[in-house]
Amino acid sequence: MRKCLCATLLASILILATLAALPAAAARESESYSDSIIGQDREVLFQVSTIDALLLAVYDGILPVGELKERGDFGIGTFDRLEGEMIVVDGVCRQVKVDGKAYVVPDEATTPFATVTFFDHDEKVFVEKADNMTELGEILETSFPSENVFYAIRIDGTFPYVKTRSVPAQERPYPLLVDAVANQTVFEFENASGTVVGFWSPEFVDGINVPGYHLHFITEDRTAGGHILDLRVEGAEAELDLTPNIFMALPTAGDFFNLDLTGDLSSDLEKVEK
Amino acid sequence: MRKCLCATLLASILILATLAALPAAAARESESYSDSIIGQDREVLFQVSTIDALLLAVYDGILPVGELKERGDFGIGTFDRLEGEMIVVDGVCRQVKVDGKAYVVPDEATTPFATVTFFDHDEKVFVEKADNMTELGEILETSFPSENVFYAIRIDGTFPYVKTRSVPAQERPYPLLVDAVANQTVFEFENASGTVVGFWSPEFVDGINVPGYHLHFITEDRTAGGHILDLRVEGAEAELDLTPNIFMALPTAGDFFNLDLTGDLSSDLEKVEK
Repeated sequence: MRKCLCATLLASILILATLAALPAAAARESESYSDSIIGQDREVLFQVSTIDALLLAVYDGILPVGELKERGDFGIGTFDRLEGEMIVVDGVCRQVKVDGKAYVVPDEATTPFATVTFFDHDEKVFVEKADNMTELGEILETSFPSENVFYAIRIDGTFPYVKTRSVPAQERPYPLLVDAVANQTVFEFENASGTVVGFWSPEFVDGINVPGYHLHFITEDRTAGGHILDLRVEGAEAELDLTPNIFMALPTAGDFFNLDLTGDLSSDLEKVEK
Repeated sequence: MRKCLCATLLASILILATLAALPAAAARESESYSDSIIGQDREVLFQVSTIDALLLAVYDGILPVGELKERGDFGIGTFDRLEGEMIVVDGVCRQVKVDGKAYVVPDEATTPFATVTFFDHDEKVFVEKADNMTELGEILETSFPSENVFYAIRIDGTFPYVKTRSVPAQERPYPLLVDAVANQTVFEFENASGTVVGFWSPEFVDGINVPGYHLHFITEDRTAGGHILDLRVEGAEAELDLTPNIFMALPTAGDFFNLDLTGDLSSDLEKVEK
């Protein structure tokens, strides 16, 4: 009898082991679906709101950081009331405030504008020397197989120079972004070990996200950083994650709904980014 | 010893049973996530490629219709080699070819450009009288709570007049869309019962999708239709589905990759749509 019971248990184990394995099979099936052009869920650039809405002062946070992190472990953005610069790296979301310090952000904090993805590098590019953002950009672009898709960009290294900024929380009536960044605080780092985190987006997302590069920085000890205004790179390896899909979640209420988004704000964007 | 083994087996069973239950818990969690601004998966406009890529003759089908239908039961588009007009309504995908007839499309057929969503109306608008597309557009827009989100539009009714077109399959080297539609075939319907299927998109998707209205038509018996060039509406009810999210799946190979998408093609689009 006891032997029989054990045989039954063994059979049960086999059945349960099969059940436990089923989700893996289901996952594989959804992967085969995702082998299509839609790609795996990890190959989606997830974006909250639009850059033009941010330029036009839509600063109220609308998506909790806890939900943002379900859409990516890597990315950049800002926070409710435009307070500080967001850096998401290795699944941790941090906020560089105007005191120059990086704080781990609670899941309840909200963002009015952010872009994240799951980072899986497709290519590595060794950057021997780049004296500024323009040179770095040209070096990375030589490795882009297409200028019509998105790239998540991660560079871990020791940087001779990084210049960043952060922006204080704004009060209503909210000023335009171009006026809000006039009060930015600038930080300079020399021989700083850390991580560059950000994206390159194609020209056709003009008005929706930032065409070209949009990069933030966080130190290796994850205590400081900001939105990159300039940097020098020497002997660092850049990782690129080609991302052919974008999911844009627009606000369903608030200032966004009645905004006039038909204007060309590219000159404002130029001033804000540089 | 044997008892001990059985206890171990029982413990293993409990562990495996827990493992088997885990995916169900994960699924529930992702449902509560969808209550956020990102909305349910049904509230996503899913798009293959970009309208500017289509204007620049990227006509090779890249997504099977079977996979497109997993992303929506309602929408419009075209097919491999630009052959005919797509109408997806109530989960069935049909192709209006240049013979004027609508054919149910096999799941293996592919599309180079399409837009679909799951249609759940948020609002109904009674259209007493509209003598053309412009008048219809103005009437519907009075019900839009915002011009910064997407609307799926469905109108079932008997239409005094509908003018549609379809386009033949193209051969390589592919002509630009503005030249391909020069060979369009035009169809006119009088007092036709049927369904208008399409979308209104905000101005900021310029280059990505069609700003404003993009509507197709299919007769009530689902045997004919096409891309709407003009129509008259009398006493029909329009249903609007406000859609605040967009998922854009870009081609990961083919003509798209090396295309110059930086130009302004809005005048081409104007010619192609009207």
